[in-house]
Amino acid sequence: MRYKLIVSYDGSNYSGFQVQKDKDTIQKRLEGALSVVLKDNISIVGCGRTDAGVSAIESVCHFDVNDEIVVGRTVGYANNILPTDIRIISIEKTDEDFHARFSAKNKTYEYYFYTGGIVPVYEKFAVNIGYNINIDDMIKGAEMFVGKHDFSAFCASNTEVKDKVRNIFSSKIIDLNDGLYKFQICGEGFLYNMVRIIMGTLVSIGRNKIKLTDIKKIIKSKDRSLSGKTMPSKGLYLKKVLY
Amino acid sequence: MRYKLIVSYDGSNYSGFQVQKDKDTIQKRLEGALSVVLKDNISIVGCGRTDAGVSAIESVCHFDVNDEIVVGRTVGYANNILPTDIRIISIEKTDEDFHARFSAKNKTYEYYFYTGGIVPVYEKFAVNIGYNINIDDMIKGAEMFVGKHDFSAFCASNTEVKDKVRNIFSSKIIDLNDGLYKFQICGEGFLYNMVRIIMGTLVSIGRNKIKLTDIKKIIKSKDRSLSGKTMPSKGLYLKKVLY
Repeated sequence: MRYKLIVSYDGSNYSGFQVQKDKDTIQKRLEGALSVVLKDNISIVGCGRTDAGVSAIESVCHFDVNDEIVVGRTVGYANNILPTDIRIISIEKTDEDFHARFSAKNKTYEYYFYTGGIVPVYEKFAVNIGYNINIDDMIKGAEMFVGKHDFSAFCASNTEVKDKVRNIFSSKIIDLNDGLYKFQICGEGFLYNMVRIIMGTLVSIGRNKIKLTDIKKIIKSKDRSLSGKTMPSKGLYLKKVLY
Repeated sequence: MRYKLIVSYDGSNYSGFQVQKDKDTIQKRLEGALSVVLKDNISIVGCGRTDAGVSAIESVCHFDVNDEIVVGRTVGYANNILPTDIRIISIEKTDEDFHARFSAKNKTYEYYFYTGGIVPVYEKFAVNIGYNINIDDMIKGAEMFVGKHDFSAFCASNTEVKDKVRNIFSSKIIDLNDGLYKFQICGEGFLYNMVRIIMGTLVSIGRNKIKLTDIKKIIKSKDRSLSGKTMPSKGLYLKKVLY
């Protein structure tokens, strides 16, 4: 039978979500803890991969077991084994045809950033983009990514995926006061580094290095060299996955 | 001549602001760095003390020197010496009668908290208050602290200060979405642990352990045993000092 697993993690100290040889990853930690608790060799399937340093407020996985499990005990015991920067929020029985990755309807990512001088407290979870930022243009720019587009210009150049058309349902910057903001983007799916490159493009707009009117042209160009730089993983959070 | 110093720090790894023998404090670090840069024995006066673990988005100090200093170079050089969790934002020449503590008109503190299960990312800067929280009552409760009151019931019992009347200009809870909130309070001055005890009282209200209608009674009682517990330092931030 299949179980749906909701987890939350601070990715700062991990080499991303997916299992990699000789690397400490979120998936490896979750599988290790669940295998101990359930006395079985548990493999989990994630809703996608997050890169090294990327965190998740709420991420979803699934795993299969032969026998029904005691959910409350499993969550409690696994959380005791897991490091405190990885938490299981819930485990619940689900349909056999539920798939953490393929059943996902949409995903929301958030990127926390702030303007002005370095604020050590904000450095814990957000990325500083400096002084003299035209935030109004950034806010307008964010909204221009909504829709179904070929996002080749906003994808790491070493990616193997062929179809680079993605459907973005919402894309906006939310003002959290006093120079602190989050860029929130919701879509059917995302290409490798796509959110971090869109964010880098918005920063270039804020710095008047890319004009608002250029966004459509950059999308059309499919040319990675025209968009902004890939922003650091630190500010990026997988916020929610909807099924 | 006197200089005004604006600083920002993450207090997690320090024993508070004020210099204490054999302890690593913010003041000690700032004095150390400025003394090296200015080749003089610099003493700084802070706008107040923050406790161990309390952070400041923006705090203000002053210091005196015999000769005019080169501000840009001093900020840059001192920040190179300081650990990255303490940053000097600016230094500017000020009137001789400016005093970081006594000239302050008001101070704003913020307390970050969140409801529901543990979210490792939020744990970096906020305090979890669990499930089944009546946030509407907490929001109403926060506003009831506005005004000039004797805050004896909201002051650490070991304090030496006699006059416990303080004037609170604003007190409110701001919804940052998805279970994340900040309690923001602005007043002429605060007693020892006052913000953390008011926050603890609001949490008791959220948990239905203290009723909204009891707040006025607790204030009147001047009895520390009737208010909520002192919340952890981790969620508390000195946000701004106005002169």
